[in-house]
Amino acid sequence: MKKERRPRIEIMAVGTELLSPYFQDTNSLYLSQRLNDLGMEVTFKTIVGDDWKNLLLCIKQALSRADIIFAIGGLGPTEDDKTREAFADALGRKLVYREELFQKIKERFERRGLSMPSTNLKQSYLIEGADALQNNNGTAPGIWLDSGPQKIVLLPGPPHELKPIFEESVWPKLQDLRRGYRARKVLKITGITESQMEALISDLYPQEPRLQVTTLAYPGQLEIHLASYSKRGPHQAEKEVEALKDKIRQRLKENVFSESGEELEEVVGNLLRQRKKTLAVAESCSGGFLSHRLTNVPGSSDCFLECAVTYSNKAKSDLLGVPMSLIQKSGAVSAPVAEAMAKGIQQRAQASYGLAITGIAGPAGGTPEKPVGLVYTALAFGKRTKVGKSLFLGKREQIKFQSTQKALDMLRRHLLRTKRKK
Amino acid sequence: MKKERRPRIEIMAVGTELLSPYFQDTNSLYLSQRLNDLGMEVTFKTIVGDDWKNLLLCIKQALSRADIIFAIGGLGPTEDDKTREAFADALGRKLVYREELFQKIKERFERRGLSMPSTNLKQSYLIEGADALQNNNGTAPGIWLDSGPQKIVLLPGPPHELKPIFEESVWPKLQDLRRGYRARKVLKITGITESQMEALISDLYPQEPRLQVTTLAYPGQLEIHLASYSKRGPHQAEKEVEALKDKIRQRLKENVFSESGEELEEVVGNLLRQRKKTLAVAESCSGGFLSHRLTNVPGSSDCFLECAVTYSNKAKSDLLGVPMSLIQKSGAVSAPVAEAMAKGIQQRAQASYGLAITGIAGPAGGTPEKPVGLVYTALAFGKRTKVGKSLFLGKREQIKFQSTQKALDMLRRHLLRTKRKK
Repeated sequence: MKKERRPRIEIMAVGTELLSPYFQDTNSLYLSQRLNDLGMEVTFKTIVGDDWKNLLLCIKQALSRADIIFAIGGLGPTEDDKTREAFADALGRKLVYREELFQKIKERFERRGLSMPSTNLKQSYLIEGADALQNNNGTAPGIWLDSGPQKIVLLPGPPHELKPIFEESVWPKLQDLRRGYRARKVLKITGITESQMEALISDLYPQEPRLQVTTLAYPGQLEIHLASYSKRGPHQAEKEVEALKDKIRQRLKENVFSESGEELEEVVGNLLRQRKKTLAVAESCSGGFLSHRLTNVPGSSDCFLECAVTYSNKAKSDLLGVPMSLIQKSGAVSAPVAEAMAKGIQQRAQASYGLAITGIAGPAGGTPEKPVGLVYTALAFGKRTKVGKSLFLGKREQIKFQSTQKALDMLRRHLLRTKRKK
Repeated sequence: MKKERRPRIEIMAVGTELLSPYFQDTNSLYLSQRLNDLGMEVTFKTIVGDDWKNLLLCIKQALSRADIIFAIGGLGPTEDDKTREAFADALGRKLVYREELFQKIKERFERRGLSMPSTNLKQSYLIEGADALQNNNGTAPGIWLDSGPQKIVLLPGPPHELKPIFEESVWPKLQDLRRGYRARKVLKITGITESQMEALISDLYPQEPRLQVTTLAYPGQLEIHLASYSKRGPHQAEKEVEALKDKIRQRLKENVFSESGEELEEVVGNLLRQRKKTLAVAESCSGGFLSHRLTNVPGSSDCFLECAVTYSNKAKSDLLGVPMSLIQKSGAVSAPVAEAMAKGIQQRAQASYGLAITGIAGPAGGTPEKPVGLVYTALAFGKRTKVGKSLFLGKREQIKFQSTQKALDMLRRHLLRTKRKK
């Protein structure tokens, strides 16, 4: 029975800066993801500073409670860096000099035309009985130690050093400890609320612990993270998560905009490119955020032509040809003005589509009839337009984001239907 | 002597989701900030899931090593929420029913026209000998317990519940444990590199441990966080940090753009408003990001008129009046085109200032002569223009950000000089 107990895993991040209000450990999120892929779960996370006594205490407590310990940071050349030394002390093992490590560190400096500082010498020491894990992006090697049944892994703190060491040297060694295979999928959703989504799919939530569903809700976007564990093999896990994804997908239909991690602006950019269509944008309350999102996608110049951010009424009239009389009659935040903006930018840019946003992002500027969060989005296509009205909650930037999300989604749904008609 | 030992503080975040790759504890950053204000430092941070045995183990280890323990989360109504129960168990204390807590929770539901679910009943129980800390934003009261010399504070996990409880009920109680007074300042800097800054000010870095300097470097922005501790009182701490800030400020001069936490776009917005000047913007490679940043500031419609995102050459010519011949001669990414864009938008919008960005954000589109990261920024003022050339490193979004930072900074420095001339 003892063998069947799930291994207890502790991730320990070492560094006084991680106890300040300014820095946060993010390496543990990455490690958790990869350990989950092996069918393992993290049991404890600890953060401790460079103080010798406290560090030693945490190491001893970790050794008393965990089967696998990942310690991150404190392997550098400075006096503050004591993780290697403290683990050796807690385990009652010596630190042993390794000539081949010394040579590698020395060569690393020499390649850059520098001589090795004497402080780096301590990085050529290993805990007795441990293996060095090669670091191609820094001077501190990682350390792997089998201490009886316990596994102890020391990794440098900078993510660009930690991740390659983990993938190249730790991941292969962890295969023996693998408890299963995990496959995962992410569905991204927009256009419905969290409770609407729950009502559509909650009966599909699996009861078996080998299938996991995690729902994340942001203003304007929902995400469903699906994971499947299998003892049998990666194909079984993949098959099961795929089947669950398909079921959820069938219920949520077009509300799902991405199954492979893409952001909404990427999806829209791809749909435009596939159809050889072009887009121009007119923004008022979103203030350029829609254009910013669209141009975050590399290669967006293929389909994105231009944007006019028309904050003032004069700009709406001058740049987009929205008649001043219409603005005076309906107000700058209105369906007719949104439609005129979309048409105006479509014509000016000679684009396949014109997309427009006008609304009240707040915190000031709301009235009982037109409250903060009221937003009109309009799409011009061919000689026609469609318009949407929304009332968003949240702070200024959240309202701006939701406006851009709504506009992108209008275009996405339109593009999907365009495809079907062909 | 024992009294003089610094208290060891542990922050423990409870919740299985915090061991997944999707969620991160951020409450501890806020608590660290406020504890630092009392002259206290966090010694340990622990994250543990809802599993009873592991939770109990962490609590016992925390009780064995810390003088003050903050435990966050696990006070909710569901079966998973066991923090209250596990602390009672570890301390060998009973949970006692408190009628007044029951009434408060019941009333909270009744005010919303709901009846109290039976699961919430357990939130009316307190650890024997503890005080309840009123929660005006949720059903779970916080808990304060003096257990011999140890202080134990249990707080609900949602930040909008935790923060008010901390400020209203925990902060006053911590005054007895205060070990000093802390004052802090943040300087934000742009226009110089980290090493240029170091060369200017590193001799000012204080040797006394009561003065702390933390430098944070981001692409396009540096921050110096200054803190001063004093045993004597808040005025002494304030005086010392102010004096250090002034010294650094004198060395860094105009490179410091903010002393009170404002972002660069806020600073520029304020400078424009104070001078009753208006701004219009033309963007190519930054794709609307500059306009987005400017309009993130509430009230920006006072001074920000419009923006044209001119990705295509046609748009540069059509919207901004940049001659096609100039684009063909100099290239879209060139000083003359940047200047023509700035002039073009200034004239079109009849704005006091026109600000323009053109460059190569990558990852594609670079050439040996015009590599990825090459960016021209131009400012049009009156009938004149000035132009800047930069070579930024980083990914697409980082290059976009640095471009907007450079453009805003050009305008800021110009506005500062305008003031002096008056």
